[in-house]
Amino acid sequence: MISVGIIGGSGYTGKYLVQFCLNHPEIESISIYGNSTAGMTLHQVFPELLNECPDYTILNVKNISFEHDIYFIALPHGEALNFVPMLINQQKKVIDLGGDYRLDNANIYYDWYKINHTSPNLLQLKVYGLADFLDNSFYQNSLVANPGCYPTATLLGLLPLVKNFHNNIISASTSAYSGTSGAGKSVKPDLSFSEMDRNVKAYNVNAHRHQPEIEQNLIKFGFSSPYSFTTHLLPVSVGIYATTTVFLDSDMSKENIREIYNEHYEDSSFVRMRETPPNLKWVVDTNFCDINVNVNKNTIVITSAIDNLIKGASGQAIQNLNKIYNWDETAGLLKGVKNVSVH
Amino acid sequence: MISVGIIGGSGYTGKYLVQFCLNHPEIESISIYGNSTAGMTLHQVFPELLNECPDYTILNVKNISFEHDIYFIALPHGEALNFVPMLINQQKKVIDLGGDYRLDNANIYYDWYKINHTSPNLLQLKVYGLADFLDNSFYQNSLVANPGCYPTATLLGLLPLVKNFHNNIISASTSAYSGTSGAGKSVKPDLSFSEMDRNVKAYNVNAHRHQPEIEQNLIKFGFSSPYSFTTHLLPVSVGIYATTTVFLDSDMSKENIREIYNEHYEDSSFVRMRETPPNLKWVVDTNFCDINVNVNKNTIVITSAIDNLIKGASGQAIQNLNKIYNWDETAGLLKGVKNVSVH
Amino acid sequence: MISVGIIGGSGYTGKYLVQFCLNHPEIESISIYGNSTAGMTLHQVFPELLNECPDYTILNVKNISFEHDIYFIALPHGEALNFVPMLINQQKKVIDLGGDYRLDNANIYYDWYKINHTSPNLLQLKVYGLADFLDNSFYQNSLVANPGCYPTATLLGLLPLVKNFHNNIISASTSAYSGTSGAGKSVKPDLSFSEMDRNVKAYNVNAHRHQPEIEQNLIKFGFSSPYSFTTHLLPVSVGIYATTTVFLDSDMSKENIREIYNEHYEDSSFVRMRETPPNLKWVVDTNFCDINVNVNKNTIVITSAIDNLIKGASGQAIQNLNKIYNWDETAGLLKGVKNVSVH
Amino acid sequence: MISVGIIGGSGYTGKYLVQFCLNHPEIESISIYGNSTAGMTLHQVFPELLNECPDYTILNVKNISFEHDIYFIALPHGEALNFVPMLINQQKKVIDLGGDYRLDNANIYYDWYKINHTSPNLLQLKVYGLADFLDNSFYQNSLVANPGCYPTATLLGLLPLVKNFHNNIISASTSAYSGTSGAGKSVKPDLSFSEMDRNVKAYNVNAHRHQPEIEQNLIKFGFSSPYSFTTHLLPVSVGIYATTTVFLDSDMSKENIREIYNEHYEDSSFVRMRETPPNLKWVVDTNFCDINVNVNKNTIVITSAIDNLIKGASGQAIQNLNKIYNWDETAGLLKGVKNVSVH
Repeated sequence: MISVGIIGGSGYTGKYLVQFCLNHPEIESISIYGNSTAGMTLHQVFPELLNECPDYTILNVKNISFEHDIYFIALPHGEALNFVPMLINQQKKVIDLGGDYRLDNANIYYDWYKINHTSPNLLQLKVYGLADFLDNSFYQNSLVANPGCYPTATLLGLLPLVKNFHNNIISASTSAYSGTSGAGKSVKPDLSFSEMDRNVKAYNVNAHRHQPEIEQNLIKFGFSSPYSFTTHLLPVSVGIYATTTVFLDSDMSKENIREIYNEHYEDSSFVRMRETPPNLKWVVDTNFCDINVNVNKNTIVITSAIDNLIKGASGQAIQNLNKIYNWDETAGLLKGVKNVSVH
Repeated sequence: MISVGIIGGSGYTGKYLVQFCLNHPEIESISIYGNSTAGMTLHQVFPELLNECPDYTILNVKNISFEHDIYFIALPHGEALNFVPMLINQQKKVIDLGGDYRLDNANIYYDWYKINHTSPNLLQLKVYGLADFLDNSFYQNSLVANPGCYPTATLLGLLPLVKNFHNNIISASTSAYSGTSGAGKSVKPDLSFSEMDRNVKAYNVNAHRHQPEIEQNLIKFGFSSPYSFTTHLLPVSVGIYATTTVFLDSDMSKENIREIYNEHYEDSSFVRMRETPPNLKWVVDTNFCDINVNVNKNTIVITSAIDNLIKGASGQAIQNLNKIYNWDETAGLLKGVKNVSVH
Repeated sequence: MISVGIIGGSGYTGKYLVQFCLNHPEIESISIYGNSTAGMTLHQVFPELLNECPDYTILNVKNISFEHDIYFIALPHGEALNFVPMLINQQKKVIDLGGDYRLDNANIYYDWYKINHTSPNLLQLKVYGLADFLDNSFYQNSLVANPGCYPTATLLGLLPLVKNFHNNIISASTSAYSGTSGAGKSVKPDLSFSEMDRNVKAYNVNAHRHQPEIEQNLIKFGFSSPYSFTTHLLPVSVGIYATTTVFLDSDMSKENIREIYNEHYEDSSFVRMRETPPNLKWVVDTNFCDINVNVNKNTIVITSAIDNLIKGASGQAIQNLNKIYNWDETAGLLKGVKNVSVH
Repeated sequence: MISVGIIGGSGYTGKYLVQFCLNHPEIESISIYGNSTAGMTLHQVFPELLNECPDYTILNVKNISFEHDIYFIALPHGEALNFVPMLINQQKKVIDLGGDYRLDNANIYYDWYKINHTSPNLLQLKVYGLADFLDNSFYQNSLVANPGCYPTATLLGLLPLVKNFHNNIISASTSAYSGTSGAGKSVKPDLSFSEMDRNVKAYNVNAHRHQPEIEQNLIKFGFSSPYSFTTHLLPVSVGIYATTTVFLDSDMSKENIREIYNEHYEDSSFVRMRETPPNLKWVVDTNFCDINVNVNKNTIVITSAIDNLIKGASGQAIQNLNKIYNWDETAGLLKGVKNVSVH
């Protein structure tokens, strides 16, 4: 049983983190730290949690206790730089849900985030926690960079193909769609209900910070072809749907490609290979990533869907927690208990 | 530990019933029986449950086993008449989620459902399971009629006032709003996405089957004033929002009225009294009923919100199960475990 | 042919005003005046109007020209007080779309708006422009107060009944539902897409500024019974749906009541009496108010639906313009030209 | 002034066709023919049109009169084969909004539609009416095949690039998103509001009938690279958003590419080149196609948006009508009259 500190628990992601922790069989105590919400109680910030879970006061992020075993950080990018080195120095384990430690290179970080990285050594030491792609042996280090929501959906769909066929790829492109909660709780005029109702729009074309994160991981598996990543906003609040088109230099059989995926994910608790393109709602409120691979001669179309706040953030963070401690990967993450006998 | 049979588990309500049962600490086995889905597996009917819970074959409703301790019936109205008397004869406990046993009188049943009731004696014996209004002593009989979704939201909001002030009420009217899932999975042209997107409409005005169900319960608490109940469809899939306006024959103090409600529900696990009108989304995916009471001289406006599929159906059914067996009323119904210490 | 000045034309309402004016057969020139948008062009403020209509620069509201024949004012409440007296002094006609001149009494205005009215004499002189309820003879004065969106839907539905049966009404209550655009373009955290998606909530219960506006008009037709008005926000961007329940002191025949409404609105271009409760989407993007009256003994349920930005604001303003000048009431407001022969 | 026959005017597309025709300055009479709706009136089929336009009886499609000058056909695919040859034989002009005459080759038609084409000679004679890409000189023949909704959005975005750089394209792929109205009014379980709310899903991957239609037109402009086209359903009722990614064999300057598009569409009334990716809602209820081209070295991302029922069907059909008769291309299609002077 461990003690957990949650730094920045009053956003959309933080809410799920708290709920998962409260429901986790191996967590015996939690503290939550906030900035603007310090001094408020959890139920004041999230009225929907009244009676659902115990209430407690959000502590001030300036007074973080070092008594916890592990810390989740759910802060806007740039802010984790103020906490991670300190916690690592205290021999603590850290799972950072933001973007500050995902890239391996401080220069690339600067190019995309316009911030000078103050602990570049940790960029090399961290584990990039794409949980369904790593076995537990990878989790030796103290710092896990939890992947971004778009990269999670995209990479889980694309990496098995890249791993096997990187030399045969002519090009690949991802067209990805996100619900509005990806932008967080902050108020933006173009994300009002009146503006987004009935609306769809591409944004940050060729300029989204998740692009170098995806590319860095594709390259690790040998990918060196043209790649493009385009993001869109949808009139849903939750979810990411990523459609990736890959052209190969020769035709492939469906059976061959599907076998690669099925083998790759056969032991996975949270990646579900599908016979048809997934429905986004199949994964909403879950930690699953649903993937379909369609093969037509040399054209591969991969569709993958996740809940951006869970699989793309807090759920995957809990999955990483479970892997760090060698617990059952699904601990705290499934709704249905599995020991009911069914006739 | 008990064994549960679910008859009609492949609709929207059935899905939640199965999930709650699989997650329930006191249920050791379940069987699910269906008509058109008999022979299919749960994962075929609900692809989103893959990996979330064990798969199993839906049994044919014609071959119901009597080995279970209790049966949930989630069938279209009229069909429960074919099962309930048989099960009661077999000394089984039954919770019927449909409308066939909610009314006390077979003639009124005929007037509203146009079906001759074939077991009118059970109408008198049944418990009308408005769970948050009954203590466990009420659950002596074998048959519980689970309240309708609209009556649940409306009565939980209105009954405490009626109980105390029925002699002072000039009139009361409820304007209630439902998501489309209340109509079930069956296909209706006017409930297609293209038709309901951006749409709102009143329906069954002065003619909704939930009206006599509400009135029957108001009358039990002494209500004898004019009452009207109007239902609407909203462009949301889940939830009911009921706004009830009551005019009294003299002015009331806010404190007085609120105290009545707070006292009434102070031990309730699932009714949450609110300082402001509830947000529908606070209760979606939960078994809560959130209620606000606004007092302005002699005008009382009560707003109440529930998830129609959970509090208005399967969740309340589980709550009734818990009350029948004298278990913790919240068993299987809350997401957050309460024994985590919080600092 | 006239010249029109639009003061405050860069909100949701202003956009429609501009479009209606550009499409109006009797308007030969328009100018639009703004505050924060002064100096921008119409196409910059409303990118969707590119190529749809000519572009032009929004003029500064501080430099309003008196060359126009009539002025539409679409400003937040309180601000019209700075323009209306000046324009009336210049012998101009004014249609104010805000709330500043709708109430007849400066004290009541203060109670609800917390602003001291600086031209209370105009409160008496103005016409309350509920267009479908007034014939052209009412439009003698220079100032028209365009009704609020909720009052328009509510009063058009309720006044014919009140006019005929005010002595027989036990009580009346309206439960009304609005899309988010009623809150205007300003940014509010609780109106973000992430917050309003799947949400419904009552607001300003017993405290909405449109309540005294409705009551003032009910009283004019003899109403003196208890009345309550409750407003809700829906997850749609456009539209108002008002459901009013009236209890009478004796039973009525459906035919009698319907005849009263049909007679009342038989010459109306924009009120459409319906056999069933209206669908909100029937009126979206139109100047229609659709009304259904359901009679069940002594209970009358009136449902009415409008587009809040058109019938509840800019469209009714144009209708008022047409009535002021004795033009065809529908000029500029219908999509379908009527002189095509149809076989 | 002409007379128009509309065959199949009771679907979503037919409604707009009727409205555009009623509003068209050069159309003096219309008749509408239907199957299942024959004998009903327009207002019965579309209650929202009451008072908006004259009512009239829908005639039986079996009794089509040959008195009209031109016929619009808005029928499910396969059915136009029964009407088009007959009308062409009668020397009539025909604009077919369905898929039966869009492809040039009867064998390819069979491959995708599984129907033997009974008038393959007309496949060669027809004009493929991508209106913004053709000047009026192309409209010599009597039969116009109105493009599909996806091809309209995709080709208007992609063809200018293909025309200029077809030899330099490594690959191109389109990820396109449609509202549910594209499926028509027919009832489908997976398109109910309860199912599509919050949902997104790819469908017909590598198998959509619009794919050969797009490819046929790309090939005409010299395209011979790998191309893929993936379609998705969104929880909106109206609109198509198409994102096309093109990789070139060398880097391009933004200025160069944008100049090509701006020149190409500088005289276009309905294609609006945008500096940012379009918002879908900018084009809803209009005949516009909004396009943005983003250039990043050798990667071009083209986003285009249309209203599927208007620009993707009835609006483009009217635009084609205007081009056939050499009328102003915008006749009947714009809301704002342009002769109002603006100061």
